[in-house]
Amino acid sequence: MKAHIWVMLKPTVLDPQGQTIQHALGSLGYQSVRDVRQGKFFVLDLDGLSREEAAGQVERIAREVLANPVIEQFRFEIVD
Amino acid sequence: MKAHIWVMLKPTVLDPQGQTIQHALGSLGYQSVRDVRQGKFFVLDLDGLSREEAAGQVERIAREVLANPVIEQFRFEIVD
Repeated sequence: MKAHIWVMLKPTVLDPQGQTIQHALGSLGYQSVRDVRQGKFFVLDLDGLSREEAAGQVERIAREVLANPVIEQFRFEIVD
Repeated sequence: MKAHIWVMLKPTVLDPQGQTIQHALGSLGYQSVRDVRQGKFFVLDLDGLSREEAAGQVERIAREVLANPVIEQFRFEIVD
């Protein structure tokens, strides 16, 4: 079973990496790009868990290990 | 219009960041996690383009700017 986890800066938090990319894209001619936000994406391979157990563990892992709850938010999905 | 872009190391490329996270999770009691791969996730806000134009630009941006084609692969989707 696999889990996909997205960790993004909260919308209220400035994203200097994304801004740098947006400026670089503008200077390359991609003026249609109005905003860029960069986040992290994790693929976890899980073994020996029911779908419910997996969802519970992945939610804890995202909250306690992968995301910084002060400035980041996350979402996840359990796949195949 | 928004675009979501995922950039991941190719499956044949070692992911030391993912391995570090997997070992940390193991030592925290999450032994069910067999593998972790970490990638990047981008949200682009696009203005004044048709869906087809957006898809073309985002494909070029991902290939030429966001991903290193030697070691990384990408996928994207155009949303709302």
